[in-house]
Amino acid sequence: MLHTDDIASNAADGNGPAPLGEHLRSPSLRAAMSVQQEALYAAREFLRSHGFTELLPPLVGPVTDPGGRGAKALDVDYYGEPYKLMTSAILYKQASLRGFGKLFYIAPNVRVEPPETAGTGRHLVEFHQIDVEMAGASRDDVMEIAAGLLAHVTARVWETVPEVLRGLGRDELSFAELLTGKFDVHTHEEAVGRLHGQGHGQSADAEIDWAGEEALSRQADRPFFITDYPKGSRGFYDREAPDRPGTLRNFDLIAHGGYGELVSGSERETDYATIVTRMRESGENPAKYAWYLSLAREGIPASSGFGMGVQRLVRFLTGLDALWQVSAYPKLPGVIAP
Amino acid sequence: MLHTDDIASNAADGNGPAPLGEHLRSPSLRAAMSVQQEALYAAREFLRSHGFTELLPPLVGPVTDPGGRGAKALDVDYYGEPYKLMTSAILYKQASLRGFGKLFYIAPNVRVEPPETAGTGRHLVEFHQIDVEMAGASRDDVMEIAAGLLAHVTARVWETVPEVLRGLGRDELSFAELLTGKFDVHTHEEAVGRLHGQGHGQSADAEIDWAGEEALSRQADRPFFITDYPKGSRGFYDREAPDRPGTLRNFDLIAHGGYGELVSGSERETDYATIVTRMRESGENPAKYAWYLSLAREGIPASSGFGMGVQRLVRFLTGLDALWQVSAYPKLPGVIAP
Repeated sequence: MLHTDDIASNAADGNGPAPLGEHLRSPSLRAAMSVQQEALYAAREFLRSHGFTELLPPLVGPVTDPGGRGAKALDVDYYGEPYKLMTSAILYKQASLRGFGKLFYIAPNVRVEPPETAGTGRHLVEFHQIDVEMAGASRDDVMEIAAGLLAHVTARVWETVPEVLRGLGRDELSFAELLTGKFDVHTHEEAVGRLHGQGHGQSADAEIDWAGEEALSRQADRPFFITDYPKGSRGFYDREAPDRPGTLRNFDLIAHGGYGELVSGSERETDYATIVTRMRESGENPAKYAWYLSLAREGIPASSGFGMGVQRLVRFLTGLDALWQVSAYPKLPGVIAP
Repeated sequence: MLHTDDIASNAADGNGPAPLGEHLRSPSLRAAMSVQQEALYAAREFLRSHGFTELLPPLVGPVTDPGGRGAKALDVDYYGEPYKLMTSAILYKQASLRGFGKLFYIAPNVRVEPPETAGTGRHLVEFHQIDVEMAGASRDDVMEIAAGLLAHVTARVWETVPEVLRGLGRDELSFAELLTGKFDVHTHEEAVGRLHGQGHGQSADAEIDWAGEEALSRQADRPFFITDYPKGSRGFYDREAPDRPGTLRNFDLIAHGGYGELVSGSERETDYATIVTRMRESGENPAKYAWYLSLAREGIPASSGFGMGVQRLVRFLTGLDALWQVSAYPKLPGVIAP
């Protein structure tokens, strides 16, 4: 097990943060926090102006998003019941559509990632999402919201803190194409084909791997969408395309410049029997999801939604290398830190 | 152990929330969430305009605020180490003064309160604080910030959602005195004396009990401060008055109208040896606080700060009876709910 102090000497070459007191006064963290504050202010401004209500998300519950890629939830004993910290509050977003047709959270999440992801620069155990859900919306509707949100936030930070961004070495010109808010859309199948054409051995049945995603990201001059991920790669709540079994009505929004995934989203499955089947297919025990399935049986509104990673967004805006550089209290997978 | 469904039948008389799906679509919750969104937007507006930087707080750590009044932290196994969910992130606020002289969080906190507090109307296991800290500030300085924040937020919600507040039965006139931002200040000793004069058996060495606090709150026509709590009643980080041993340089801000405490704050202790002594006096093991004490030995800036309870603020603004009515996902002490 690594301790923060052990990797303090690596801070200069970007492999990990300095001890907390030193990290908190580093000029790059202070710059990043200024960008983060403006970015979140702009995100709220955009979502409010589009009629979304902000709610404060729950932290613990009997179940959470089963997630993917090997991350686990933290367990707690909640008055004698086994509860988990939210890895994402997706199930609560859906439940909340009952009273709030357009809602969002700035949600803190905890995912116990495998220690081998500590060096990827793109994993933190504690992170935040701008978590959006919209009743009656199609995938296209929320892809437009996600693109508009990214364009608005980017424009705003260049208006409010341009000197901070320039001080970090960012060039406004590299965001010019982004500010149009018009992004290309590729299917997962097309992305896999393109990677194969470049000699990258990407599986057709899985998420785009990190190296592949980074390669595609570096080749772009503006963010782009990847849609239609294969069923096995995502949670039971992503709706399967009725006309294309095995393919999900979901999407990622990938930043250009090598910064990779910023957003994951989807149309949601709302049919009770289908949800139970999808849970079983993905190895989940439906009995654990009693409160959610009880709501689903009564009827959860059809919706689409997404989560935009706050630290990934700030890393992209600031051009810093690793997520720990844009977190005030960074927790790298497998590294013991305050 | 109570389950939410058991108390659903009490929803109408205010003793507990309906099942989640029903709770989320209740008109009073929807009204409260609209007020909450405006209140938090206004809080950020005020704090930004006063030069504060918003940071995203940590969720888990090796230690948290030891707290008071019988609440416990939730334990987690963090890569083999015993960690806790934040009951408050006060220690991280102090650490962050190294890089950010004026900072705030909208911080989620979890406190496992005793089940007997489920019916008080003023306890939730999951809640949020507007958590403010200011380097070089005296107690008077942050009392002024707290009063200004409350006055600004109140004025703003009456500007942005007056029809929602009126729909909940609120009368703008009952906030008229508050909007001056000039609040009376009573010491703990004076408050105890006043309660004794009313035949209320308040201990001189402890927090004002809830019945006493509510009585004082009902007798006021605007919020007021209580200062100088006795040492045993608060955490080791509240600074002891050099000229009045046993008395802390702290304060609460109490709402009028029976709504009770909205804010707790203090000047902070920064002397390393004194912190260790205070930890020992309050039954804390200094060894558990290694990362914090290591920073304290190097030097933590002198500061004052406070936490304003978000749900308590929204309850006060909306005039609803209980905190569960202003939480989208209410968790009452000892009650198993999603």
